[in-house]
Amino acid sequence: MSHTPSTRLEHEYLMTLHAPVAEAPQQVDGSLTIFHSDRGWAKGPRIDAAIVAPTGDWLRTLPDGTLRVDARMTLRTGDGAVIHVVYGGVIRISPQQFQAMGAGAMLTSDDIYFVTAPVFQTAHPDYAWLNQVQAVGKVAALKGGEGGYVAYDIFGIR
Amino acid sequence: MSHTPSTRLEHEYLMTLHAPVAEAPQQVDGSLTIFHSDRGWAKGPRIDAAIVAPTGDWLRTLPDGTLRVDARMTLRTGDGAVIHVVYGGVIRISPQQFQAMGAGAMLTSDDIYFVTAPVFQTAHPDYAWLNQVQAVGKVAALKGGEGGYVAYDIFGIR
Amino acid sequence: MSHTPSTRLEHEYLMTLHAPVAEAPQQVDGSLTIFHSDRGWAKGPRIDAAIVAPTGDWLRTLPDGTLRVDARMTLRTGDGAVIHVVYGGVIRISPQQFQAMGAGAMLTSDDIYFVTAPVFQTAHPDYAWLNQVQAVGKVAALKGGEGGYVAYDIFGIR
Amino acid sequence: MSHTPSTRLEHEYLMTLHAPVAEAPQQVDGSLTIFHSDRGWAKGPRIDAAIVAPTGDWLRTLPDGTLRVDARMTLRTGDGAVIHVVYGGVIRISPQQFQAMGAGAMLTSDDIYFVTAPVFQTAHPDYAWLNQVQAVGKVAALKGGEGGYVAYDIFGIR
Repeated sequence: MSHTPSTRLEHEYLMTLHAPVAEAPQQVDGSLTIFHSDRGWAKGPRIDAAIVAPTGDWLRTLPDGTLRVDARMTLRTGDGAVIHVVYGGVIRISPQQFQAMGAGAMLTSDDIYFVTAPVFQTAHPDYAWLNQVQAVGKVAALKGGEGGYVAYDIFGIR
Repeated sequence: MSHTPSTRLEHEYLMTLHAPVAEAPQQVDGSLTIFHSDRGWAKGPRIDAAIVAPTGDWLRTLPDGTLRVDARMTLRTGDGAVIHVVYGGVIRISPQQFQAMGAGAMLTSDDIYFVTAPVFQTAHPDYAWLNQVQAVGKVAALKGGEGGYVAYDIFGIR
Repeated sequence: MSHTPSTRLEHEYLMTLHAPVAEAPQQVDGSLTIFHSDRGWAKGPRIDAAIVAPTGDWLRTLPDGTLRVDARMTLRTGDGAVIHVVYGGVIRISPQQFQAMGAGAMLTSDDIYFVTAPVFQTAHPDYAWLNQVQAVGKVAALKGGEGGYVAYDIFGIR
Repeated sequence: MSHTPSTRLEHEYLMTLHAPVAEAPQQVDGSLTIFHSDRGWAKGPRIDAAIVAPTGDWLRTLPDGTLRVDARMTLRTGDGAVIHVVYGGVIRISPQQFQAMGAGAMLTSDDIYFVTAPVFQTAHPDYAWLNQVQAVGKVAALKGGEGGYVAYDIFGIR
């Protein structure tokens, strides 16, 4: 074992999540901001689901200004599966970008770093494959203001 | 936004972790098994650190038999940084493989699925880059019995 | 230090929480059931607040059948405070009681054990006292079916 | 339901915990300090157990200066039970008190507020009663410096 990798990281596209932000984020204090959503969707080659409540992100600001995602999401598929999604993640966004976003700008992964790490839990046999994968999400778009939403692509790590 | 990805997932090798298992895992009940470690190392192009206590994994077994990692690790570098590492993850291992491992066999990522998603926290300016990345770990080796350890490669997601 | 207490536990009534259950609980699998609420209230001698989204309980069933509360709640007061509440807890309820509740029965602390342990977080100076207390909640009423809700009294531990 | 309690909080002494601090706390950044312990004991009318690794507290400092306990502890009884303990909690301690403690002073619940909320998990039938109770811990003594430890009384809430 030396300090070079002996494994190869591979990934597979699983789905895209699109979550409208329900209303202005709730600022608890300088270290905690709460977002929530009760609609939106998750679509991919093997899934077509709605985001339902309870879905929220209890976003923490670390002393160095980086953000830590702490999110829980509920998905319901057309064929009756309830899927619990939980994820941490890391966001880097400058104060200027944050302000622009609040004024309605749309940011993408070219502008900001926004990567999450979802895991899934469900008893529905058609979605057992979701229980078996550590996923990673990468922001596709983040828009603030009226009609604000976040979209990210979810990849399964292999 | 359709159900194809608009982003590209990339990764960069950060370090390899090597954590001897301190003693036999502690079985709390059918849903929770606790491992801990108080030595080992993390080495990579930009880091050379020791694993110190408290470091443990409170591994949960879901009803479908897949495992969920719930780990907290403390790293200390030669130049005095204290780095808090926290990660979830997903493990798939068959009862036969688990038994073989307990008897001293070494498993690799060819045998089992064992992927984690670490995030890091530190105030040391030389390691600020760790605060800014969502990482993914992939098992390199998992050995049970005497001299048991787990090793995994850590990649930063971009 | 012997095995008798050297401290005295005291408590003070802080508020009563009344949370209508928004809809039927979402059963993820045999170990996880999700409840959520987006209305209700918290009232006490020093607080009058509304329960808002995101508010949910990700209730886990342990192998021995006891339940573990894992809840996050958001409160908004009339004078503009946003208060984040997070709590674990323990519930003991028999299958017969659970079935009766689902059919609309109201249970109280005479029937079931339902005790939670909330902590609060807010930046609003009028509610700084909430940041400074570990609280305990005891179920006052739990009603299932149409018009279902949970109510509990919250006491600050001293 | 009005803003007076309809329930009565009662409690029962369960045990006293005595946890030597293994070494100087590890300061991650301004918001996170890690303590750990790998010895100590839990004694009460119905339990006599040793504290073993992994046991730690990932103590968070909120923006208002109050502290949030985030602890995981492992207990092992003489008759072979493994008991997982997890607890949050709230600590209020002044900078002066913190400094005095670091220099070796012993503080008690007359000096500081230090209340935790443990829950327990075990499969051992003789300790099934621990699975069924939300507990509260109150600091009995907190000593820093050489020979430092924390002791608290644990009460079951009824």
